[in-house]
Amino acid sequence: MLVQKYKDMLSGKSVIRELSEFATARGKEIGYENVFDYSLGNPSVPVPQEFTDAMIRMLQNEETNYLHGYSPSLGITSVREKVAASLERRFGLPYRKEHIFMTSGAAGAIAHAVRLVTVPGDEVLTFAPFFPEYHPYVDLSGAVLKVVPPQLDTFQINFEKAEEMMTEKVMAVLVNTPNNPTGVVYSEETIKKLAALMTEKSKQYGHPIYLITDEPYREIVFGGKTAPCVSKYYDNSIMCYSFSKSLSVPGERIGYVAVNPACEDAETFIYMCGQISRGIGHNCPSSIIQLAVAETIDLTADLSVYETNMNLIYNELVDLGITVVKPDGTFYIFPKAPEEDAKAFSKKALKYDLILVPADTFGAPGYFRMAYCIDTEKVERSLPVLRKFIKENY
Amino acid sequence: MLVQKYKDMLSGKSVIRELSEFATARGKEIGYENVFDYSLGNPSVPVPQEFTDAMIRMLQNEETNYLHGYSPSLGITSVREKVAASLERRFGLPYRKEHIFMTSGAAGAIAHAVRLVTVPGDEVLTFAPFFPEYHPYVDLSGAVLKVVPPQLDTFQINFEKAEEMMTEKVMAVLVNTPNNPTGVVYSEETIKKLAALMTEKSKQYGHPIYLITDEPYREIVFGGKTAPCVSKYYDNSIMCYSFSKSLSVPGERIGYVAVNPACEDAETFIYMCGQISRGIGHNCPSSIIQLAVAETIDLTADLSVYETNMNLIYNELVDLGITVVKPDGTFYIFPKAPEEDAKAFSKKALKYDLILVPADTFGAPGYFRMAYCIDTEKVERSLPVLRKFIKENY
Repeated sequence: MLVQKYKDMLSGKSVIRELSEFATARGKEIGYENVFDYSLGNPSVPVPQEFTDAMIRMLQNEETNYLHGYSPSLGITSVREKVAASLERRFGLPYRKEHIFMTSGAAGAIAHAVRLVTVPGDEVLTFAPFFPEYHPYVDLSGAVLKVVPPQLDTFQINFEKAEEMMTEKVMAVLVNTPNNPTGVVYSEETIKKLAALMTEKSKQYGHPIYLITDEPYREIVFGGKTAPCVSKYYDNSIMCYSFSKSLSVPGERIGYVAVNPACEDAETFIYMCGQISRGIGHNCPSSIIQLAVAETIDLTADLSVYETNMNLIYNELVDLGITVVKPDGTFYIFPKAPEEDAKAFSKKALKYDLILVPADTFGAPGYFRMAYCIDTEKVERSLPVLRKFIKENY
Repeated sequence: MLVQKYKDMLSGKSVIRELSEFATARGKEIGYENVFDYSLGNPSVPVPQEFTDAMIRMLQNEETNYLHGYSPSLGITSVREKVAASLERRFGLPYRKEHIFMTSGAAGAIAHAVRLVTVPGDEVLTFAPFFPEYHPYVDLSGAVLKVVPPQLDTFQINFEKAEEMMTEKVMAVLVNTPNNPTGVVYSEETIKKLAALMTEKSKQYGHPIYLITDEPYREIVFGGKTAPCVSKYYDNSIMCYSFSKSLSVPGERIGYVAVNPACEDAETFIYMCGQISRGIGHNCPSSIIQLAVAETIDLTADLSVYETNMNLIYNELVDLGITVVKPDGTFYIFPKAPEEDAKAFSKKALKYDLILVPADTFGAPGYFRMAYCIDTEKVERSLPVLRKFIKENY
């Protein structure tokens, strides 16, 4: 019974939540500044001043019924136009407002994308390590999430297993690049290979397999690089975006679905999103927040701190002999625990007030995740503690 | 197939949307001020200055990561506390934050409420005339909406039919008072009778039947009266609220679920809402908007214009010999068309640039809805036109 299902979900305590609760409680004892909390992927950099200025300017000058009035169910038209124009400028695909549907963050976008292309019982494929929330996002739509085991040496895609698991029941593939929890960006080679496999299987099965791309970390890429735009390599693709990380406004829950202009029925898909919304209580995101992100569409917060933090942590881990793939972006790093049982490892770290998330639920047992969206000063203070912990235990 | 279902929904054009499109097109020809558009229930009064001031004050003074940061999945704790305290002050029930879940408007609230208490195949009972969006809200959850025929002389509940239709499959009853489209407020007598019937049937079937109360118009009641609080009369009740109309901020999509403190498992229900959210892409509503409504929790916009408009229209209709129940609140009135076919009536009205919505989809064929959330000056200008239309045709 579905109702029982929600009750059951309550008893499955999230490891991340438990660790975060521990961090808060411990913070009350010894001061939160002394707890090295790498548990939560919560953006820490300030919102761009331009965003705040735009909000204040609108509130001071615009009519309230314009700012806070009903937006059309697909999103405010001018906002959809600005999103489309920005995507076209950046990625060279001919996006128009007809391809854009404004959502409540990336979670809202994925909820629509999955319902667009699957019916209950269909399978959605994703690749470990993966964001564990994909399970409720997909499973509660009635579709079934299948997780392809990881390619541990690179955290690119394990194509041998992917091919095996891309059966006729698979209607969609869900990728997350730059990736939570690894920080890795899928290479052009990986994306091309995935596109070729999906094209071949689509032909073989006589139905399209859609590529859903979850891209909230798109703007956080290190070394002055940019992440390849997955949609450029596969026509039947649906981009899911959130401004949470780029503008550092996760609580505003603002994002969009952008259907590839080359996708068959792209415009019908967007109208279908409007229908899906009616049934899942999604509504549009806040009207004033839609207007504010449109005003700052090509800006980001100062995201450089994440690269600074990554380098500090990565170098320390390497120096400690820990196996780790260097992140290309995001604010995560995903090292291998120096013992097989990552949960035991994480538990030991707590004694040093180091909050490290064991990654079993990410589909990569034996690894752990550090979310380094915290002050650099704190990262620096944590490194000798990390060293002490490793040296004393391994 | 579910996907086909969303496609199919697209072909079923909404009468209200068609009429609204006509009004916009006609407005371009003759000036929108000359189109008497009674089609849309879109609040027209300004947002309270205090709301705007609170937004600006927060944006100028608070840290951006506080204003726009992740809120807990149940909503910002301080906001839930303020909502609970306000409900306790007003209705005398011991609401605490543990009974409150912040949602994306009333639609978001109903999406959660329905999923809390039904599994696919269960029935949800509502009473005609009813808000047609209840169909997607309920049907796309997998439950089935059943509509009890109207009590046409009063627009209270048709208890004879209600008793007949409250079978063992009914897990929830969904009421909307003050009512869209009739403007009628359910009397204390109606609510008591409904509560008694539901208590009796719950006992008979050995399972609770939950009462979901959709209350976005609660603050718009005429004659200095207040609407009886339905939750006071039935323990197993779930209140769904939106600030859309009270604060005139429909585009902000902000509301809540308030589970009756006397409901069994009230607190579990709220945590279950958090789990449901994970699966439907709901997320929390905007964090800054949550904070802003908490700052203005007991305020409303100046809603008096709706009563002024209602009296003007009601008196004119009565004078014209039209059958009509006097609204107790909202910004709707629901007269009987002077011919059997309300669609034909509505079509004829278009020639006079009067946009009246035929009410077949509201479950009351032969009636029509007027949404009078427009300027009083325009209402006044519309009355001679309405008179001319009726006199020339009936």
